[in-house]
Parts: sequence; structure tokens; C-alpha cells
Amino acid sequence: MRRVAIVGGGMSRFGELWSRGFRDLIIEAGTKAVEDANLHGDEIDALYSGTMAAGRFVNQEHVAALIADFMGLNPIAATRVEAACASGSVALRQGYMAVASGMHDVVVVGGVEKMTDVSVSDAAIALGGAGDQEWELFMGATFPALYALMAKRHMYEYGTTEEQMAQVAVKNHANAAKNPYAHFQKEITLEDVMKSKIIASPLKIFDCSPITDGAAALILMPLDKAKKHTDSAVEIIASAQASDAIALHSRDSLTELKATKIAAKKAFEMAKLKPKDIDVAEVHDCFTIAELMAIEDLGFFKKGEGGKATQEGKTALNSEISINTSGGLKGCGHPVGATGVKQAVEIMWQLRGAAKGRQVEDPEIGLTHNVGGSGATCCVHIFKRA
Amino acid sequence: MRRVAIVGGGMSRFGELWSRGFRDLIIEAGTKAVEDANLHGDEIDALYSGTMAAGRFVNQEHVAALIADFMGLNPIAATRVEAACASGSVALRQGYMAVASGMHDVVVVGGVEKMTDVSVSDAAIALGGAGDQEWELFMGATFPALYALMAKRHMYEYGTTEEQMAQVAVKNHANAAKNPYAHFQKEITLEDVMKSKIIASPLKIFDCSPITDGAAALILMPLDKAKKHTDSAVEIIASAQASDAIALHSRDSLTELKATKIAAKKAFEMAKLKPKDIDVAEVHDCFTIAELMAIEDLGFFKKGEGGKATQEGKTALNSEISINTSGGLKGCGHPVGATGVKQAVEIMWQLRGAAKGRQVEDPEIGLTHNVGGSGATCCVHIFKRA
Repeated sequence: MRRVAIVGGGMSRFGELWSRGFRDLIIEAGTKAVEDANLHGDEIDALYSGTMAAGRFVNQEHVAALIADFMGLNPIAATRVEAACASGSVALRQGYMAVASGMHDVVVVGGVEKMTDVSVSDAAIALGGAGDQEWELFMGATFPALYALMAKRHMYEYGTTEEQMAQVAVKNHANAAKNPYAHFQKEITLEDVMKSKIIASPLKIFDCSPITDGAAALILMPLDKAKKHTDSAVEIIASAQASDAIALHSRDSLTELKATKIAAKKAFEMAKLKPKDIDVAEVHDCFTIAELMAIEDLGFFKKGEGGKATQEGKTALNSEISINTSGGLKGCGHPVGATGVKQAVEIMWQLRGAAKGRQVEDPEIGLTHNVGGSGATCCVHIFKRA
Repeated sequence: MRRVAIVGGGMSRFGELWSRGFRDLIIEAGTKAVEDANLHGDEIDALYSGTMAAGRFVNQEHVAALIADFMGLNPIAATRVEAACASGSVALRQGYMAVASGMHDVVVVGGVEKMTDVSVSDAAIALGGAGDQEWELFMGATFPALYALMAKRHMYEYGTTEEQMAQVAVKNHANAAKNPYAHFQKEITLEDVMKSKIIASPLKIFDCSPITDGAAALILMPLDKAKKHTDSAVEIIASAQASDAIALHSRDSLTELKATKIAAKKAFEMAKLKPKDIDVAEVHDCFTIAELMAIEDLGFFKKGEGGKATQEGKTALNSEISINTSGGLKGCGHPVGATGVKQAVEIMWQLRGAAKGRQVEDPEIGLTHNVGGSGATCCVHIFKRA
């Protein structure tokens, strides 16, 4: 396999963007990425797009061809990849393989979701398609309910507290407030979270990531070519993906995501690194409990100690390990198909030293962790300054 | 890149399968493919699924993880690929790259669509998402209307007749009647087609492929491994994909699909072959006019002569070139995500000499041609007995 690097990236503002459409969001992100990579459109060989539910959100399938068309990239191969909320990182992984295989040289990987064109209840149904439609959604189990079950069990088994979960939200809003692209630009207090409306006990509104519009994009090329092209290339040193039962009731455990553990193990083997080598990570915090499970399952902290570590500030910006410097799904927002790509854009900026007000001090290795549904898909990538 | 071969395949019956669901259709096809390849589930490294609109048809996204789960394949990487009606062949292309790159050794590629759980009008809206939703579907242009425009222009420019288009349906129903998996098992006459109800002039109901449920699956592995594993391997000697404008009004021509021509050129270059080297081909006949354009754009016949060639029987079983021996989308049915994979299963059977009542005499080289939407995506694969 050829070694693969990122040579450019960009994103739209994330938020409730009432005046923006699916097309212009991804075109903005894609154009920024192409410009950032100092390339012209005719140098792009293929396009991958991570998009979860455009069929339900904007009545549009076949979105990769649409994007190639509106970005002026025809006749390149344009492929949409879908793995629920992990669509973006699974698209990145296909782009990685397209370059690694030698099939394509310069690949643009985009992620986009326009979620606010439908009502919140319709959005909840569309998102419910990430779980087991017949055995979960149809029975009324939407995603806050599924993650609430995991939170309850984590509290029962490990003594995790609501305050510890709330601290994830406080930290991620603090980071988001330093990120001009983030959905939420305001810091919040522990009290704000604890007093907020209950959605599915123990999860309150501030434990949940929002419904967000947004897009992000990256440009990949072979490492040897990338090094000649730019001095700010970031190598993808591992790309791993794993699956688990789609329905929560079929899992071995409610307090860990097996797909995360398996994908992480593969990724660390591929990169020949250990969790302690990671300087900065974007992890999947669709709910605050998800971040606690993630930092445990990825091996950053022992099982059951994620809450305590968060409370002690060990995951804050420039602490033991900087987690979700972008603000995460919680603070930066979660346009589902875009999230996995946005995570990699944030890591690229961090490794370049270009993350401005939220810059981690001199990071060398970064990681992204992106989950589909309640854990049926997990994708882990590891990145290094080239 | 490593060379890649197909070592097994299978499919469900295609049809209006009221008693079958999304899950059991793809599990049937996948299980048949794994058995046909003489493998066990734990030898599979990754899964790709081509599925167009499960979000709208069965309210389920994240379908690759679902399939991996219900086939007992966890924790392998499971990825859904979507490119409208070309989803199946684009999934095959990702599977091909996953093996060619060295990332995965044994890959299952599935295609599935369960279309009859919604009303015909809801299905038409879901399928309309394959075109430009904002500029075509929203304005009332469903797919029969779009292909009718192409048919009208082809008649005007080249003198193609309604009888010539009707002959595509007659031939493909004749082939389907010999295929036990086909949606339609009855031969039809030219008069049947000509007297059938007009859908969008000049297209009549018998010029249109049906709304079909069904699934198909293939197993890929590196060629060197495949040759040791079986004596019936089929090598994928070319895999090419191209894009064009998603809306018909933005195309250079209404009488050809530029994406077909570009993908075909790439595929023939990759395989070091010419159109005359192809013995058997499955081409995208979502409407009869689409088959005429396909056999011209692929270079089997000169532009404008597809209708005449069909009328003269040059595309019938065991004639000049056997086109759509499975019955094509028209006769075998068109469960959109499954079609591209089914085309490759049919070619595998033909190259193995296992197509029973519809076997082409001793074919060496086969081709599949799969179109997304009205031509915004085209994928061409070329296959050879290994």
C-alpha cells in the first residue's frame, strides 16, 4: 500500500443555517479544501462524500455525483459512503484506500448534512435509522433513549455521576467558544447543564449534541507527492473500522463500545503506537456519556475512570490529553455526515499549529474516533505531521 | 495494485416479494455467495453494500452494519455505498479497491433494495432523488419523463423507432423467461409492448423496468489466492467510474451518456481490450432507450445504430454480442441497489458456463455497465475467466 497524506482541508461554519442549502455548504467546504491544498479542480481524480440521510433530510440521493457536478469536478469518480454518524470517517477511509491502492492520486473527501430543513421530530426519525429500525426506532427508542440506557448502566457499574457527564459538556463548550466554526460559541457552567431540561434521564438537553447543518472537506494524495507539494502535509498513519450489533439489546456490554475497542486496537497496531502517544484527539461525543466511554475504550483512561479524569480536568485543552478541541459534536455541532471529516480537519489544523485560540502545544500525533449509531460502526484514524 | 478475482456469488429471487424483508433478502444472497465461494463467515474481512434509498423505502440507514450483524460477520468493517441505481457496481468498485490496496483480503460485496414496502408514488419520489431534486423532481420530472426526453431526441436525430425500442423489451423478457431468478418469467411480443399503456411518450409501460425487491452478493479475493482456492475464479480486469451533470438540462447531449463513454474508455484501456472483445454484457436498461444508448456508447455499435442492430437480432442470446442475458433491468427486475451486483453475478455465471438455459457459448470476456440516475454516474467493469 502507498502511504497517504492530507494536503488541505476546510469547512463551512456549523450551525442552524436557515439560509444555506445542502449544495452550497459542501461546495464552500470543498472549495476551501482545494484552495488550502493549493490545487486546481482539474487536478482532483476522485471524490468521496460522507452523508447519512440526505434522502430524508433534503429528498436527494446520489449526492456524490451532485457534489462533483456543482463543484465543477466532472467526470471524476464520485462516491457517497454512508455509515450513519460515522459516514464522514468511513468516506475518509475509502478515500485513503483509493489513494493507497494506486487507483487514484488526488482525492477529495467531503462530509455534509443539511438537517434543519425538516422538523425536529422528522429529524429524530431520520436519525433513528442509524439504529435497528424494526426493533428500536419502531418501538420508540430514539437515540437519547439508547444513550441514556448506556449512561444509567455506566453510573451503576462505575459510579459515574451526572456532574462528571456534565463536565464533558462544560469542557466542550469552552473549546467551541474558541472555534469560529462551532455551532455554539458560548461557554456554559456545570449548573447550566445540571439544571437543563431532562431529555431521557439521566441525559439533559446539555448532555446532547445538537441538530446542525454543516460540511467539511479534505484533500488526500500519496505521501511522497504530498511532501513535494507542501511543507504542511499530515500523514494518515492508521485507518481502522469495526462493526458491532446494530441493536443495543444484542450487545455484550452497555458500558463500552466493542467496535471502538477493536478499531482502536487495529489502528494502534497499524500505527505502531500506544494510546499514551496521542497528543490530541477528536472523539465521538454525540452525548456526554459517549465521550466518557470513548476515552476509556480508546485506552486513554482505565474503564470506569473517564468521568473522574474529566472532572479532574485531564481532558481539557493542554492537559494530559486534549480531547475535542473543536468543541466536539457537543459544542461544534453534529451535522452527521460531516462530523468524521470535520474531526480530521481539526486534527490537521492542530498538527499544523494552525488552531489559533485553541491550539494544543506542539502536538505530533492526533487521533479521530467516529461512531455510527449507538456503536454498530466505529472508525479510528491516526495522523502524524509528515 | 493486487489483481482481484470473484470466487463466489449468489442472489435472491427478484420480484414483488410481499412476504420478504430487506434483511432476509440480503442475508439469503450473502449466504449463497459465501457458500458458493466455499468459505466460512469468519474468513470474510470486510463488507460493502450497495443500497440506494433504504432510508425512504424501509426507514433504515446504516445498512452495511445491519447486514454484517444479521449475517454474523461482526466485527468486520462494513460500508454502505450509494450512487443511485449504480450503487451496486460502485460498491463492487470499492470492494475491488479494498482488495487491490492490500487493506482487506476477502471481501463480500452485496446489493439490496426492498422497494415494495411503500406506495408506487412514494417509490417514484424516492427514485427521483437519483436526479436533481431541486430542478427536476420538484418540478415534476420523474425518471420516465427524463428518459422519454432522451428517447424523443434519439428518434429525432437517428430515426430510432418505437418498434426498435420495443424490441429491447421483447429480447430481455425472452432472456428473463430463461432465468429462474427474474422478476418476469413470461415472454412478450412486439405487439404487447406497442399496445401497452403510455407512461411518458414515447415510453410505454413495457419500455420501463419494474419496481422490484431483491438482493445479490459476490465474494472477492486477491487473484493469486483465488486461483489456489477454486478453479472457477473470474478476474476483474477493469473497474472504471465516471460522472456527468446530474440534471439532464446541463448535459452536452440527450442522445448519449458521456459518463458511459468516459468510464468505458477507461475500462477498455485498463483491460487492454476493445468493445469487439466482449462476448457477453449486462447493460443498464432501466428504460428500453437506455439499452440502445448503452450499446452505442460502449462502442458495440455505431452511434444511432443501436435500434437497428437490436431489430436485426444482433444483441440476442448467442448472436453478435449477447446483451442482458439475465433479462436486464427490464426483465430480471431492478431493485436499484442490487442491480449492479446482480449484473456481475450473471457475468460470473456466464463465464463459468453455469447460466443453464441462457448460457452464451463459451464466453471468455464479460462486461457490466451500470448507470446512476439519468446518467450522472456510470460504472463499467470487465471480467475474464481466471
